[in-house]
Amino acid sequence: MMNHKFLSLIFIAVLAGSACLAQTNQPAIVEDFKPSTKNQPGQEYPQVNSQGYARFRVVAPQAQSVSVSLGLGGKGGTVLTKGAGGVWTGTTEGPMDEGFHYYHLSIDGGVFNDPGTLNFYGSARWESGIEIPAQDKDFYALKDVPHGNVQQVLFPSKSTGTSRRAFIYTPPGYGKDPKKRYPVLYLQHGWGEDETAWSNQGHANLIMDNMIADGKIKPFIIVMTYGMTNDVKFGGLKNFDIKPFQTVLVDELIPFVDTNFRTLADPSNRAMAGLSMGGVETHMITLARPDLFSYYALLSGGVYTPTEIKDKSKLKLIFISCGSRENPDGVKKAVTDLRGAGFNVVSYVSQNTAHEFLTWRRSLRELAPMLFR
Amino acid sequence: MMNHKFLSLIFIAVLAGSACLAQTNQPAIVEDFKPSTKNQPGQEYPQVNSQGYARFRVVAPQAQSVSVSLGLGGKGGTVLTKGAGGVWTGTTEGPMDEGFHYYHLSIDGGVFNDPGTLNFYGSARWESGIEIPAQDKDFYALKDVPHGNVQQVLFPSKSTGTSRRAFIYTPPGYGKDPKKRYPVLYLQHGWGEDETAWSNQGHANLIMDNMIADGKIKPFIIVMTYGMTNDVKFGGLKNFDIKPFQTVLVDELIPFVDTNFRTLADPSNRAMAGLSMGGVETHMITLARPDLFSYYALLSGGVYTPTEIKDKSKLKLIFISCGSRENPDGVKKAVTDLRGAGFNVVSYVSQNTAHEFLTWRRSLRELAPMLFR
Repeated sequence: MMNHKFLSLIFIAVLAGSACLAQTNQPAIVEDFKPSTKNQPGQEYPQVNSQGYARFRVVAPQAQSVSVSLGLGGKGGTVLTKGAGGVWTGTTEGPMDEGFHYYHLSIDGGVFNDPGTLNFYGSARWESGIEIPAQDKDFYALKDVPHGNVQQVLFPSKSTGTSRRAFIYTPPGYGKDPKKRYPVLYLQHGWGEDETAWSNQGHANLIMDNMIADGKIKPFIIVMTYGMTNDVKFGGLKNFDIKPFQTVLVDELIPFVDTNFRTLADPSNRAMAGLSMGGVETHMITLARPDLFSYYALLSGGVYTPTEIKDKSKLKLIFISCGSRENPDGVKKAVTDLRGAGFNVVSYVSQNTAHEFLTWRRSLRELAPMLFR
Repeated sequence: MMNHKFLSLIFIAVLAGSACLAQTNQPAIVEDFKPSTKNQPGQEYPQVNSQGYARFRVVAPQAQSVSVSLGLGGKGGTVLTKGAGGVWTGTTEGPMDEGFHYYHLSIDGGVFNDPGTLNFYGSARWESGIEIPAQDKDFYALKDVPHGNVQQVLFPSKSTGTSRRAFIYTPPGYGKDPKKRYPVLYLQHGWGEDETAWSNQGHANLIMDNMIADGKIKPFIIVMTYGMTNDVKFGGLKNFDIKPFQTVLVDELIPFVDTNFRTLADPSNRAMAGLSMGGVETHMITLARPDLFSYYALLSGGVYTPTEIKDKSKLKLIFISCGSRENPDGVKKAVTDLRGAGFNVVSYVSQNTAHEFLTWRRSLRELAPMLFR
């Protein structure tokens, strides 16, 4: 059963994150808007300017009201106004935090996606998304470097009676040397998301490609599967029980990956990390099966306390991170306590970000060089 | 430049396909509706009954009008009516053709997706989709058999100045025997679609997995990339020039695949196939580079004439298919002509389907056992 302390931490973080606007004095809007990089091919809207304002445009000639869920928390987002030709437009009241934001439209009281954007699985549905370019956006950009592959695998799962899906990142060159073996990071999404999140929203593959090209990390495999966090069949969030997912991960997926990919199949070459609810899962599974993993990482997903780690014989590193708009003091305190008890712990706080994907992209960038050393 | 004969063939097929309802006397509606298999997780609508009727449900309390693009051609689809709680519902006027259909909602004059369904790239946008179960649906079902992987690769493309994306199906067991090499089918989507279509809408991977498990085909690799058919940068549809895509495919992708995957890298183990506009591309590229391919397949994508094939030294098989609601007589005549001229040709007509994905799933099922023999 769920440890409510961790759920509380996450819910506070989600609430904090829902105020997507940076709390600064609002400057005059600079008219250098460009299409968001998360738009569908050829779509001009939504747009983003150099200050981080977002502008929306929706065609719905006979609609009575159109609004966007993004904007100041509690104010119902950004209300669009109708202009010539039945075109609704509007701009956020202030600059938004850098990074990726989920959103949707409310049209005459119904919830729909913005037809201008690609779709991203969050809040247990495919949502619209927008990207406010970050100052450090280069680290997750598509560049002219050798690229690893992201492959969809369907693995047999007796415990759930179906074939389950995972996405597996293999580093550049994986296909070329049939003798080389790699360590593996098991990387979990958050509540409301699924196994597509770390590639689509997180650009985990591009982050890895770029760091490998720069010689900053030792290449490793990343495995991303659905943590069953949204699924009422498996208890939903309130009655979440880790057992069904732990069985899938430990008894089904890890053996499948070790059989079908060229892994270094020992605990010293296996890490687990997760964001938000995926951090809660990481926390529970690493404590339950310390024989399997040597690196534990919680990204906006709670903390470890020294006394709960009973078996540290395999443990090499604990990594704990969050955004500066979440609970950095809680993270720092946990790290102090763990260090005092002799654990090797690293913390990271992403500046000016909340419970959102830029926090987690940066966390992966910070974590990756410390793994499998 | 585009050969207008082939474009005409396709446009006629598209128009014919837009009447998605089977032309039968309409029986009383049986109330055994179930959620479409293309719905988002947990979504109850849209639904489909055992006769092939589709029923839609959209929440939009203050909307003035809601309709669905699916329905009898020329009648503007299915108009939904408003009921209690601002819920709009409606059922198609008759049973629909079996298989997959793209659609969208019109809400107060704007075009949006149905929030109940997954999204599929068609008509050069991410659209809603619905599945009317086919009598032979078993061949593309997810079953408890060994599964191949579908991997996203990003390959360098000097000619277009970017990394381009392809999806590559590798058959079950590919990861296990580092010495085994496989033939390759290059498989193209249609206009308005992209490199995701054959996996998402076509279930090409499941069709292959099932046929391999049944011992019906020799395992092979499938490569799916974007044919640049929607992209005004490359001439759009009207001024379509095959050269930019031919360069990407022949000079960039094929060498990349042969370097990074365990292929049998010779023309006798290389096939090209495409649906609709992808068939037109297959037609043009195989005629231009008969030194590279031994198997040519056009799926609702025009025909070959005997005189245009100048070099048949490598050619082993031509496959031409379409739906029975398209132009089967044209396909049959072309096959007769080609046979008369001594070519090894096979044709296939999918019963009771139009210019839609069930035609192409079945075409792949018919084609696959004949490849690489």
